[in-house]
Amino acid sequence: MQHDPTRVKPPSHLPHPRQVVADLEASRIREVANEGLGREGVLKFWFGESDEVTPAFIREAAIASLQAGETFYAHNLGLPELRDALAAYTDGLHPGRGVAHWQERLAVTSGGVNGLMLASQAIVEAGDEVVVVTPAWPNLVAQPLIMGARVKSVPLKVLASGPRAGAWALDMDALLAAITPATRMLIVNAPNNPTGWTLTAAEQRSILAHCRRTGTWILADEVYERLYFAGDTPNGAASSFLDVAEPEDRVIVAHSFSKSFLMTGWRLGWLVLPAALTAAVGKLIEYNTSCAPVFVQRAATQALLRGAEVTPALVNHLKACRDTLVPLLRGLPGVTLAEPLGGMYAFFRLEGQADCLDTAKRLVREAGLGLAPGSAFSPEAAGWLRWCFASRDRERLTQGVDRLSQWLLAQPR
Amino acid sequence: MQHDPTRVKPPSHLPHPRQVVADLEASRIREVANEGLGREGVLKFWFGESDEVTPAFIREAAIASLQAGETFYAHNLGLPELRDALAAYTDGLHPGRGVAHWQERLAVTSGGVNGLMLASQAIVEAGDEVVVVTPAWPNLVAQPLIMGARVKSVPLKVLASGPRAGAWALDMDALLAAITPATRMLIVNAPNNPTGWTLTAAEQRSILAHCRRTGTWILADEVYERLYFAGDTPNGAASSFLDVAEPEDRVIVAHSFSKSFLMTGWRLGWLVLPAALTAAVGKLIEYNTSCAPVFVQRAATQALLRGAEVTPALVNHLKACRDTLVPLLRGLPGVTLAEPLGGMYAFFRLEGQADCLDTAKRLVREAGLGLAPGSAFSPEAAGWLRWCFASRDRERLTQGVDRLSQWLLAQPR
Repeated sequence: MQHDPTRVKPPSHLPHPRQVVADLEASRIREVANEGLGREGVLKFWFGESDEVTPAFIREAAIASLQAGETFYAHNLGLPELRDALAAYTDGLHPGRGVAHWQERLAVTSGGVNGLMLASQAIVEAGDEVVVVTPAWPNLVAQPLIMGARVKSVPLKVLASGPRAGAWALDMDALLAAITPATRMLIVNAPNNPTGWTLTAAEQRSILAHCRRTGTWILADEVYERLYFAGDTPNGAASSFLDVAEPEDRVIVAHSFSKSFLMTGWRLGWLVLPAALTAAVGKLIEYNTSCAPVFVQRAATQALLRGAEVTPALVNHLKACRDTLVPLLRGLPGVTLAEPLGGMYAFFRLEGQADCLDTAKRLVREAGLGLAPGSAFSPEAAGWLRWCFASRDRERLTQGVDRLSQWLLAQPR
Repeated sequence: MQHDPTRVKPPSHLPHPRQVVADLEASRIREVANEGLGREGVLKFWFGESDEVTPAFIREAAIASLQAGETFYAHNLGLPELRDALAAYTDGLHPGRGVAHWQERLAVTSGGVNGLMLASQAIVEAGDEVVVVTPAWPNLVAQPLIMGARVKSVPLKVLASGPRAGAWALDMDALLAAITPATRMLIVNAPNNPTGWTLTAAEQRSILAHCRRTGTWILADEVYERLYFAGDTPNGAASSFLDVAEPEDRVIVAHSFSKSFLMTGWRLGWLVLPAALTAAVGKLIEYNTSCAPVFVQRAATQALLRGAEVTPALVNHLKACRDTLVPLLRGLPGVTLAEPLGGMYAFFRLEGQADCLDTAKRLVREAGLGLAPGSAFSPEAAGWLRWCFASRDRERLTQGVDRLSQWLLAQPR
């Protein structure tokens, strides 16, 4: 009777995923956002996206593609036209190597997050050690964990004094001490979500030199590269590991169309790889998502070709948003923050609110203000809140600060 | 001088991915397709997709969404409207449990392949044993390998005689003997790509009963469920593990919009999970692609709501394609094949052509005929060729057979 299913009961205990997957934290930002479900008039600054719709000319390119019937499978590594445009774009930001050089180093991915996951799949074996600079977007820590790695966190430190007091800063000695020959990969996101921390070219050179010694891969999440306000670099963007590394260095840079082209919902990004790795990542794309939709890639191609109509104005606007929000926040009692040099977040400490997840939920309920709790990004950021200032209407930022101000006044002293 | 990068050279050898990733085979189907680059007039039956554009009303739903500015992030598990439509669709095919039952068991994924990869991530630890029934779509073997698993293949066997001579069939005893308490997951694709092999409900019950005993997860790739021609089931579709399993069984079923709704290029699929696993898969979606584009999900919602306008006619047409192609192929000298009961492939052996990768390349060059080599799907399928018969114009199939016939005549005896 071996084949009689009635003889064997289904499992009496619940089916369970791998322990490491069960242990992954659910998003604390979504936990706060759920607090706002069904609540009218909440000012939402919790997610990392602008409230501005993708420019019409980009959407129209996708519409034209759909009307033309481009609904079939595409190349694993991306449409040739998009790869051409990406190579030209990359050459424009990092000149001197030629378009052909970048052509063979590109892989189009189903979002920046997907590119980062593919990089972990390409590099990280179970049991490997991975170092992550934190606070960071939670996905950067989760991905190597899913691949079975051990993750070692190197926290940024808050400057207690000086002109940048309240800013999160890298302890270079601590980072380099943490990266040993046992470290398979370093994951670093700068300009940083959530802290706004950035890396200088000199710091990138130091990290690279050390990682060359230890044989460690660098996975650089540079999706906020263009959202940089300091004006101290030749191309206007934040310094990139691509500017300091040789083509054969063990460096992978992850990019996204989301932030610089207002395309969060399109799920398209790209990786810049050592050429020797491109074919392997092409195989991983086949086995993960196979390709990105052609009509999405057509839209992205237009975004790149006409990027001058989008990104510079966006960066100017975000700078104005920052310059609206940060001084107002600084004027509130108990608030500590430094002006972020890049990205689209104001990250601030609120005195006496150590349980920032609870604070963020209360702000939704009691003040109609939606912020992300710092504890979503690392334990060290408990007591902090992230405010995405990518708001089409800067007046919304002012209104939000008013709500926070009134809520603070109502708190017991 | 620890921080002086000029003191440390980049690695002198090329950077390399993990060995398991380097060892993954590049697609042999793409290798054949590359043979056709720049060649005019090749009749292409190599990829697993119809040459028919997605129906206009589905594309129009995406266009309307883009025009309405739906370009923002969406829910990890899918839009509520799409999940409602999927629950109703699943309830229609597997009635009696109610829509609410399915609601809590669904996850929308970025393609069927992405759903399968998420399932491997949820279940498979490095070092685990995974059993795969082959020949199979190469991705089914690659995914657990990427997660660090050991993959054990259980080959189907070709029937030498009887009414189904030339058909690939399951050796149930061999399969059950291969699945032990050490087997973490069984991966099975039926209706099968490439062989057209299908599972009966009785066979599914036997497999399930055995896997209950051993504590083995079943990952069932059922993307061809609706493309079933035997007419011997209550709902017209191939029998599903969802029909024989209890909700708390360790069974995951992967689906795609690609095949039943002519939406290959859209990259949208879904998983049906034990409810206890849904939240974990939602977290994995966050860390892999975060979500599918809203405009793609709007299109898929319309595809489901108006599915009666698409799928039944498509299945009828594919049956007519099969009934055109299979008798013609059988009439050729040296060809062995059985009529497939499901799927969209004729899988046939060509006598004297053991190196089918070479044969497929020669057919492109010498006959203008594009087929997929059997060796892409497993070593046992060397000498076989896969012909996707999802052709809008059945005349193309006849033309293709003429080309194959003339090529065969020109071969030395």
